[in-house]
Amino acid sequence: MSSQELLKDDLDLNSNLADEDNWYIYEPIGNPNDMAPDVIPDCQLTIPFDLYHSCMAPISLVIFLILSLLVKRKKLYPNCWNGAPGLLSPVNFLEDVQNKGLVIAVFGILFSSLCVLMLDNNPLPFISDSSIQNREYWKMLALLYYPAFYYPLLACATVQHRVGYLLGCLLSWCHCVLYIWQKVECPQSPKIYRYYSLLSYLPIILCLAVLSLWYPMKLVESFRENTKMVAEKIPGSSYYQEYLKCILAKRTPKKSTSRAKPSWLSSLQSYLRSFVYTPQEGFQIPLKLALSLAMAVIAVYQVALLLLASFIPNIQIIRSGMTKEMTALFVQFGIIPSEKPANIPGDKEVATAKHYIWSLEVCFISSLVFSCLLTFCMLMKSLRNHRTNLQCLYRGAVKNVFYRSCKLQPSQQSLICWMYFAGFQISFACLALLIQHVVFFICIVSFTFLIAVPLQSGTNMHLFKIVANMWPFWLTLGVSVIAQNLLAHYYFLERDHLPRELTNRRALYVVTYMFFPINVLLGLLAGVWRMVVSVLYNILHFCQLDGSLLSRGVEGFDPGYRTYCHYLKIEVSQSHPVMRAFCLLLLHQPGPQKMQRLPPRDAEGIKLMKTMNSALRASKGQQNRVRWGLAYTLINNPSLLPYRKGALVDATVNGTKASITKP
Amino acid sequence: MSSQELLKDDLDLNSNLADEDNWYIYEPIGNPNDMAPDVIPDCQLTIPFDLYHSCMAPISLVIFLILSLLVKRKKLYPNCWNGAPGLLSPVNFLEDVQNKGLVIAVFGILFSSLCVLMLDNNPLPFISDSSIQNREYWKMLALLYYPAFYYPLLACATVQHRVGYLLGCLLSWCHCVLYIWQKVECPQSPKIYRYYSLLSYLPIILCLAVLSLWYPMKLVESFRENTKMVAEKIPGSSYYQEYLKCILAKRTPKKSTSRAKPSWLSSLQSYLRSFVYTPQEGFQIPLKLALSLAMAVIAVYQVALLLLASFIPNIQIIRSGMTKEMTALFVQFGIIPSEKPANIPGDKEVATAKHYIWSLEVCFISSLVFSCLLTFCMLMKSLRNHRTNLQCLYRGAVKNVFYRSCKLQPSQQSLICWMYFAGFQISFACLALLIQHVVFFICIVSFTFLIAVPLQSGTNMHLFKIVANMWPFWLTLGVSVIAQNLLAHYYFLERDHLPRELTNRRALYVVTYMFFPINVLLGLLAGVWRMVVSVLYNILHFCQLDGSLLSRGVEGFDPGYRTYCHYLKIEVSQSHPVMRAFCLLLLHQPGPQKMQRLPPRDAEGIKLMKTMNSALRASKGQQNRVRWGLAYTLINNPSLLPYRKGALVDATVNGTKASITKP
Repeated sequence: MSSQELLKDDLDLNSNLADEDNWYIYEPIGNPNDMAPDVIPDCQLTIPFDLYHSCMAPISLVIFLILSLLVKRKKLYPNCWNGAPGLLSPVNFLEDVQNKGLVIAVFGILFSSLCVLMLDNNPLPFISDSSIQNREYWKMLALLYYPAFYYPLLACATVQHRVGYLLGCLLSWCHCVLYIWQKVECPQSPKIYRYYSLLSYLPIILCLAVLSLWYPMKLVESFRENTKMVAEKIPGSSYYQEYLKCILAKRTPKKSTSRAKPSWLSSLQSYLRSFVYTPQEGFQIPLKLALSLAMAVIAVYQVALLLLASFIPNIQIIRSGMTKEMTALFVQFGIIPSEKPANIPGDKEVATAKHYIWSLEVCFISSLVFSCLLTFCMLMKSLRNHRTNLQCLYRGAVKNVFYRSCKLQPSQQSLICWMYFAGFQISFACLALLIQHVVFFICIVSFTFLIAVPLQSGTNMHLFKIVANMWPFWLTLGVSVIAQNLLAHYYFLERDHLPRELTNRRALYVVTYMFFPINVLLGLLAGVWRMVVSVLYNILHFCQLDGSLLSRGVEGFDPGYRTYCHYLKIEVSQSHPVMRAFCLLLLHQPGPQKMQRLPPRDAEGIKLMKTMNSALRASKGQQNRVRWGLAYTLINNPSLLPYRKGALVDATVNGTKASITKP
Repeated sequence: MSSQELLKDDLDLNSNLADEDNWYIYEPIGNPNDMAPDVIPDCQLTIPFDLYHSCMAPISLVIFLILSLLVKRKKLYPNCWNGAPGLLSPVNFLEDVQNKGLVIAVFGILFSSLCVLMLDNNPLPFISDSSIQNREYWKMLALLYYPAFYYPLLACATVQHRVGYLLGCLLSWCHCVLYIWQKVECPQSPKIYRYYSLLSYLPIILCLAVLSLWYPMKLVESFRENTKMVAEKIPGSSYYQEYLKCILAKRTPKKSTSRAKPSWLSSLQSYLRSFVYTPQEGFQIPLKLALSLAMAVIAVYQVALLLLASFIPNIQIIRSGMTKEMTALFVQFGIIPSEKPANIPGDKEVATAKHYIWSLEVCFISSLVFSCLLTFCMLMKSLRNHRTNLQCLYRGAVKNVFYRSCKLQPSQQSLICWMYFAGFQISFACLALLIQHVVFFICIVSFTFLIAVPLQSGTNMHLFKIVANMWPFWLTLGVSVIAQNLLAHYYFLERDHLPRELTNRRALYVVTYMFFPINVLLGLLAGVWRMVVSVLYNILHFCQLDGSLLSRGVEGFDPGYRTYCHYLKIEVSQSHPVMRAFCLLLLHQPGPQKMQRLPPRDAEGIKLMKTMNSALRASKGQQNRVRWGLAYTLINNPSLLPYRKGALVDATVNGTKASITKP
């Protein structure tokens, strides 16, 4: 009984901890603000949230304006003075491959703020609690306020200027210091669970810490790289060149030593390995994919934290407050066995009740851990699938990904889906975690209280009794399955030569007829199995957007999969790495650099076309270069495009065009 | 208030009806045998079930032995005397295309008996109620007894002899008269619902009536066809010839008047038409498919009857027994609004409670009707799909059906699945109906009590209040979706020429960033929609075996779909109608008929091979005939097969072989 003693110790420890709180057990949990106001110290922030926001919002705005002016004054956009008012791009979603850390950090802050906001009574910091008439309305406004509030944190990096980095440094340090100060000053809050607020702010603080390190690093780098060429500063140029090298590198022939079937162990290994994403040389996941998966991980953290914080403390309070009166209720319902006459449970029964509640806690935590791990695995697998799909699409194998031929062109639908993608991925991960947790919790609790606890205590053996009563059923099914298999193998199929043929048909028909009722029962089991398999499959793959939950032919009705397909169309058509690499090579050549300095609507294209005519008999390398030049010219002279529509305005050019548009 | 008055009248009527029964409302429903023993007359059968079975079982056995001897004495199997004891085939599952009605009727009787048996306390008629120690055990034995009991009803037809038809007549008349007599004598039974037993026996009586008409008809036919040729008596020969004619008939070119896109209405019409199975000239559904679908329909009837009989009478009793004391409970829980002080409900509150229970009844019946209709539609659609799949496989388009190439050869797995198929189809239909009913019932009840009843009475408007409170949420989502769509259409895509290209990228990035939090919320809605769509799809298609519930690539893990695929392999490889038609043509030629009379292991094959060598330069028609002759010879001389394996033992020969094996 050593394990039970250990359990008891644990129970005592927990009850002591809970006794200190001394929360009244029947306290309604619905209004968490009323809970234990005397226990959690009523902490006054030196810099409350409204002051913080009313200081930082103007500062952010000023920084934003400075950056805007700086960009306009600089050589980057000289023709922007006499156009529409310039916008600072938050991040170059389609082209940026270097600043992933920064983007993920800022989006992490934004998303975590959103999570905190959803449960907050005070959605907008400027509106006082008392003046709120319609809280939902202000929450919706806050959904637009927070992105604007954190906007400068991103914009400081996109201008790619020393001043931007410096401002970014200051801004991120300010945010970081203020948040840490707030949380050090008041680590506890009365909401849901005393440390819930602290834990839910953790991702924000971590992301801000990343930013506070990233900006100084970039600032130092910008001072060092002062002497280097400007052309090399095009973001991501090194990645595209590397990608090209990998593509063009001579393939080392794969070891084809044995074509023998892989062993059971190795196939299991390769299956398990499919859940682990290992980076591939010369290939990087696009920014938006990396961003959505990172956000999904944060979302899973937030949902898991919320579930844990809203269940475990409450059930611990119930456990520690377990009295004989309450145990009597359990005894009356027959949940807890009692040797004494009913309604008078002893210490032993109370301990059993506490043990049961403790088991419930363990079930909850284990199902939560299990579903978190599963969701992470599925997200990793998803990342692998994304890479495979992108590589397929890059080399033009559209049918491998979409299972039908379709043009990789931007359309309204695909653009909208591209914009939705990150949000969908995050929400699906949240929902997947919730559903998985609920289902696994029910399964684990059933297993515990129908199998494990009865086996341990020897009581409440209802399930075992039912199964034992059904032994003729199981025996009949087992025997009939074995008999039909044996007959099929030895009697109804010819044994002499391959391919095997039917024989003894009359006996086959007799057996089919005689076993018909039993096969109906077998079908019931198969039907239940079908249900379980399809539900489990859908639950496990719910967080993955790269596969449809619906079956072949109707995949498009799955909103997640449709969004993913459209997203891929935009991603591939607008940022094909080979196209980008070629464009970068062209930009580095002395010729095209001169071309760039020419006014955009010159006759360069026509000249090049003439060159092309003469180059038809030239070597292939020259010809290719001329063609690339032509493509480049056409892009810088869009007025020529309609005349050459049929020849060049195609998927090939889509990529080229996308890559050279102004950043 | 006219509608409420009507309702009241209805309520009164129902309560009067129920008052006549005067069942006590708190009677435990668990043991239905105890219910109202004084109301249902204790009826003594003149011929009780055990007497019926102990008479009919020996008669069936005698008939079976007579048929067995008759078959052996007849010319059909002259070489069976000196072999293993001959078995009477119940039905030629793979080849029979004519006696579908008979087979379906007998299987209907068998399956309905099984349904009755499952709920019976007295599984085997020979075992008295008191001596039963382990009821489950006897039930399992009964699963083998009933097929044997009804076996002669099928066997009488398979011998295709006048005496068989005569015996079949007598046997089916006996069964039919006895069953009808029993049910006329004692139409009511205390189990579940007074008429449940009668209604659940209805399919048995109907099927027996079909048999009692079918056998005399066949007997008369057999006297008429006395003078016709024996060769024409090969079952199904006319169908195969007709199939061949259809295949070889000149196709009338389809009207290709307009290639315009079909209108919305016509595409809806064609979609709805896909749920209606219309027979196609020259094609018949194989016996086993027709059988399983007919059984599925009977199964749906039995399950629906059971659901109806176990719910509606009980809830009607509760409704009629509704008192002020019980209504007080509802009022206390706030389900029924009360103008008076709590706990003292008046007549109006009682009427409301009765109205609510009546609504529950209506919901139950409507959801049951709805799910029955849906299951029927899906079974019809399934039948259409079966035909399409079979036609594809017949013409060799394996990839259209299995989505990968595979050999259509019998294997142990496929044979087992072929045997299981009917049972699986039936069970899946039952489970589908159950699941659909539960889900639709919950949906309809939620709709009624959250939307319809509050709208009617103006109370309990909880849902409306929640939705009204969330208006900023819905407004924000709606506005943001519209805004993003408008921006994508008019601002982010070039409007001048096709294919449309991305433009205003910086604004696109800003909008993507700013709408990120709102898109997360939109993603939550999309996630819920994804869940609903996948659950609905799986529930609707649960009864269909011809499609997998799992998504592309893992379809094989669905036990239903795997069984179906294997079933198709056997069906197509063993009973290809073209093969059968050619074989029948060969059998009708004078040559092959002589060949059949030769001892099986002669040198005919070698002779024919020589003929073939000389015929190589002959005309194509002759050549083909020679080849068919060769194939036929090889089948009748299996010892030659191994030497010609590579050349002929292929999918083509599989069909031929299957069709000429002895019946």
